[in-house]
Amino acid sequence: MTADSTSSGSAVRDGVLEIPGPVNLFHGGELPGAHIAWRLTGPAQAPVVVALGGISADRRVYPLGGADIGWWDEVVGHTKALPCEQYRLLSFDWLGGSGDSSGPQGDAAFPSISSYDQAEVLLRLLNHLGLRHVHAIVGASYGGMVALAFAERYPERVTRLCVISASDRAHPMATAWRSVQRQIIRFGLDAAQPERGLQLARALAMATYRSPEEFAARFSGSPRHDTDGFVFPVEEYLLARGADYTRRHRSGGFLCLSESIDLHRVDATGIFTPVFCVAVHEDQLVPVADIRAMGARLPNGKVFEISSVYGHDAFLKEAGQLAPIFARVLGLAL
Amino acid sequence: MTADSTSSGSAVRDGVLEIPGPVNLFHGGELPGAHIAWRLTGPAQAPVVVALGGISADRRVYPLGGADIGWWDEVVGHTKALPCEQYRLLSFDWLGGSGDSSGPQGDAAFPSISSYDQAEVLLRLLNHLGLRHVHAIVGASYGGMVALAFAERYPERVTRLCVISASDRAHPMATAWRSVQRQIIRFGLDAAQPERGLQLARALAMATYRSPEEFAARFSGSPRHDTDGFVFPVEEYLLARGADYTRRHRSGGFLCLSESIDLHRVDATGIFTPVFCVAVHEDQLVPVADIRAMGARLPNGKVFEISSVYGHDAFLKEAGQLAPIFARVLGLAL
Repeated sequence: MTADSTSSGSAVRDGVLEIPGPVNLFHGGELPGAHIAWRLTGPAQAPVVVALGGISADRRVYPLGGADIGWWDEVVGHTKALPCEQYRLLSFDWLGGSGDSSGPQGDAAFPSISSYDQAEVLLRLLNHLGLRHVHAIVGASYGGMVALAFAERYPERVTRLCVISASDRAHPMATAWRSVQRQIIRFGLDAAQPERGLQLARALAMATYRSPEEFAARFSGSPRHDTDGFVFPVEEYLLARGADYTRRHRSGGFLCLSESIDLHRVDATGIFTPVFCVAVHEDQLVPVADIRAMGARLPNGKVFEISSVYGHDAFLKEAGQLAPIFARVLGLAL
Repeated sequence: MTADSTSSGSAVRDGVLEIPGPVNLFHGGELPGAHIAWRLTGPAQAPVVVALGGISADRRVYPLGGADIGWWDEVVGHTKALPCEQYRLLSFDWLGGSGDSSGPQGDAAFPSISSYDQAEVLLRLLNHLGLRHVHAIVGASYGGMVALAFAERYPERVTRLCVISASDRAHPMATAWRSVQRQIIRFGLDAAQPERGLQLARALAMATYRSPEEFAARFSGSPRHDTDGFVFPVEEYLLARGADYTRRHRSGGFLCLSESIDLHRVDATGIFTPVFCVAVHEDQLVPVADIRAMGARLPNGKVFEISSVYGHDAFLKEAGQLAPIFARVLGLAL
């Protein structure tokens, strides 16, 4: 199923790939079949770049006008850091997430999903679209993990990776924070208050995505006193972000993809594709030291280091620092 | 009410100070009266050192034998970093906590408590014990905040402070993490599952007390698969620590004292008592930069910096690094 349209002289294709079952999953589970919502935009014949974001990202990378939204709209678009007029951009809704691909129904459980499963989804999508080869996968956070898994398994299908704020495995401290988030969500489900659980889990996640420096600059004001007691500026912010999140996401998808991050393990020494890594000094979830260590293990790895008060969220915000890296990495003849 | 005994030639006095009401609190609340459980140990005539720890600490600083326990037993004791044979050690159960002082009944709410309120409790305790003057207050974490509040208000009653992993105000990122912990606890109370809420809040707190380096060294193993899905090593550890905590603490006390940390603000420029600060490079809750900045604002401040994989919990663990600091600070003629 495909809907084709053109926007600003570029083709836009939105589609849903049906994968017949049984779909055998890396961690041992099985699906009776799956569907994957995808989007491909950009000038015909332009090189294809797969753009993959965090667990809350989806196929809408940048807004196509009207009411459309895009999770990477500060970085991707016309003449932006990742210029949509030079590349065809492909993305998809994660398997197991809250989007339009197969995932948990409502707040129900779903089999454990591996970054290798997402990589296989991408392979099937490339086959479906007749793309023998893509110019690059640009993946950030969970999307960077999926990019690494893809290159390990299907090296002949991609020329280079650009991996931002992701490593070959999760850091145990980041697993600690995510484990607590998942426990909060399970608490919410058990207490028949899934939205409250999801709100609190997202509030906690937001604190780990940003840096102490940013919070010190934004939230040093005094608490206000309401009927329930004191409310701190940072508390109000996190709860508001958490509440927003519950309008677009479900507990089940959060549980599944959060766990998938912590289950991620690839063998960097077996990834021969050139991998350009971007590490952020202030990232609390993926320490620079971990990306440096992966860079040293990768046969063709190179690490760029940047500084950003946005911490793990730098990939969403730091268009100015990412632009020259993307230009260099995507412009290389490999 | 006082129970006197002797142990190893040292006096041990356990008592409860009754404070008649109304007790007016810094943040505007009022108590109809309060009682404070305290302990004073050590050789008669030895200089008095007040030892104050985190929000989970109490009057039992080091074990007195038998089934007695002490929150600082790796650091304080006979010939230890803080030698109990050289000093009389005074401590008390926090007002508003889960111990034997006045605090929330069960999981009920309690007025907001300031570090200034705890300082006033200490003042009343010194008056009650006839101690015109103490040699030092050694305070870590919340106890360090209370030490600062005491010296600002009652400078004539203490000669020096040793303040470990505490600053003149909480960092907004630390407030973020604690706000989420309090929200989890309120969720537990609303869902009539206070123990589960307290367990999760403590699990999250533990992750902030320690360092990424420690967790990387201890918890890099693979997850195990149980009937509910994957369980990660660090998740199992945090939940076990959280469950332990619920056996000795109540939600109400956690809420009250956690909030008290975030409400803490003292004026460092108005503290003329010599303050010896200890900052831990790996502390995620109280960044070294904050303690350095406070050290620069204190008229008589000095900052020692140490490194520890135990992060914010270094004060509980790093007896070897604290011993020379205590010896120097407590030995000074001021």
